[in-house]
Amino acid sequence: MAERKLILVTNDDGLGARGIAALTEAMLPLGEVVVVAPSEAQSGMSQAITVKHPLRVRQAALNGCISYAINGTPTDCVKLAFNQLLVRKPDLLVSGINHGSNSSTSVLYSGTLGAALEGAVNGIPSIGFSLLSYDQRADLEAAQYYAGRIAAAVLKEGLPKYTCLNVNVPEGKPDEIKGARICRQTRGHWQEEFDRRTDPAGREYYWLTGKYFNSEPDAEDTDEWALHNNYVAVVPLHTDLTSFSTLEKIKNWKV
Amino acid sequence: MAERKLILVTNDDGLGARGIAALTEAMLPLGEVVVVAPSEAQSGMSQAITVKHPLRVRQAALNGCISYAINGTPTDCVKLAFNQLLVRKPDLLVSGINHGSNSSTSVLYSGTLGAALEGAVNGIPSIGFSLLSYDQRADLEAAQYYAGRIAAAVLKEGLPKYTCLNVNVPEGKPDEIKGARICRQTRGHWQEEFDRRTDPAGREYYWLTGKYFNSEPDAEDTDEWALHNNYVAVVPLHTDLTSFSTLEKIKNWKV
Repeated sequence: MAERKLILVTNDDGLGARGIAALTEAMLPLGEVVVVAPSEAQSGMSQAITVKHPLRVRQAALNGCISYAINGTPTDCVKLAFNQLLVRKPDLLVSGINHGSNSSTSVLYSGTLGAALEGAVNGIPSIGFSLLSYDQRADLEAAQYYAGRIAAAVLKEGLPKYTCLNVNVPEGKPDEIKGARICRQTRGHWQEEFDRRTDPAGREYYWLTGKYFNSEPDAEDTDEWALHNNYVAVVPLHTDLTSFSTLEKIKNWKV
Repeated sequence: MAERKLILVTNDDGLGARGIAALTEAMLPLGEVVVVAPSEAQSGMSQAITVKHPLRVRQAALNGCISYAINGTPTDCVKLAFNQLLVRKPDLLVSGINHGSNSSTSVLYSGTLGAALEGAVNGIPSIGFSLLSYDQRADLEAAQYYAGRIAAAVLKEGLPKYTCLNVNVPEGKPDEIKGARICRQTRGHWQEEFDRRTDPAGREYYWLTGKYFNSEPDAEDTDEWALHNNYVAVVPLHTDLTSFSTLEKIKNWKV
């Protein structure tokens, strides 16, 4: 009998978030599920690793799966899972379901995708899932449905080495969504609008806020276009940041 | 008379590090320099942003330049500089000089390069500089020399939009190094070796440590090869993580 698939589940909203409970549930029919996730919310942590303080592992429970909570980043969770907590390398890593979009350049700041990229660095097929709503009561049904379908496809077909998928899903029911589109990352950026306040002692402080600007709103092959048109957006990412077109342009620089 | 170039200097080792003093000094002949850097060390912070606590700005002094210390990540520093602290967008962003290599996939975890990628996202020509030594007394002379030369080249030639340079420099004097090579990011990964200890209360904890494995040690077009052969390695990076080859392979998936 073939060994059951081993699936590692993590996230950046922490082990107590609704998104990871929904994702774990969607993975149960596909194999043996182990959860290794941050004990606290780790939004915006990108692919950060913890070097200043030691990491602690606490056994936990989620949907009856072997589960661990870590006082670190999503990437710390993946590293600890691969090196210490799992009996073997998993067949699949899934991260999320994040509460809030990680499309376009948001992927650069996302802890959810940081974990998926860490899986990719280590040669494990990996997927980050995010829901287009920050509402803690948001309807996760479509995200959960597509998580199951896309994870099953990756388990069956595999992914090229050093790549992962960035999946964003509109809120709602599965039949309210037009389907999934394979896309590229939209060009765009966040325009910061720091909220400047004064504390009771009279000292200034800033909260980071901002608005997203899409540099190519009409490009139909992008994830932003897909999401605006009520599709699930699936973007394959890789961990090689080399700009080969720039390399060609600057290769004769004398520095 | 042409306006002087405006250069933003940041890092991830914090405003008190020797590397940022050396980098600031190297920039002074090239334009007006403003320093916005973390107040404390932020190694391994990748492109993380701070959403859990507010940011505070403290005026400081470094080499006679207008300087600010921020209780946040390198990327926070760049965002605050662009949005609140600089009178106009800078002509160049430089980050470093990091104490320790950021070649190959280390770029994914590096706060130094997180800041440079944040500059690139915002369309600012940006460069991250790192020295191949963690020794706090390391000889920064070659790194400082090449920082000046490469920054001057970028100010003169520009960089394609949404790209930055990742520059790693061997330790030593400029004339001990063979020159600079334009390279691609080496394929490789860190093999974690968590250091498992027991605290005085009998509870286990882990320190993250590891060894780097190069998957293509003989590839002469890579940054690792350049550094092993005593060259400065210059890798152009971009912020589009899309794997276009994977996109082609999976575009007909029915999910």
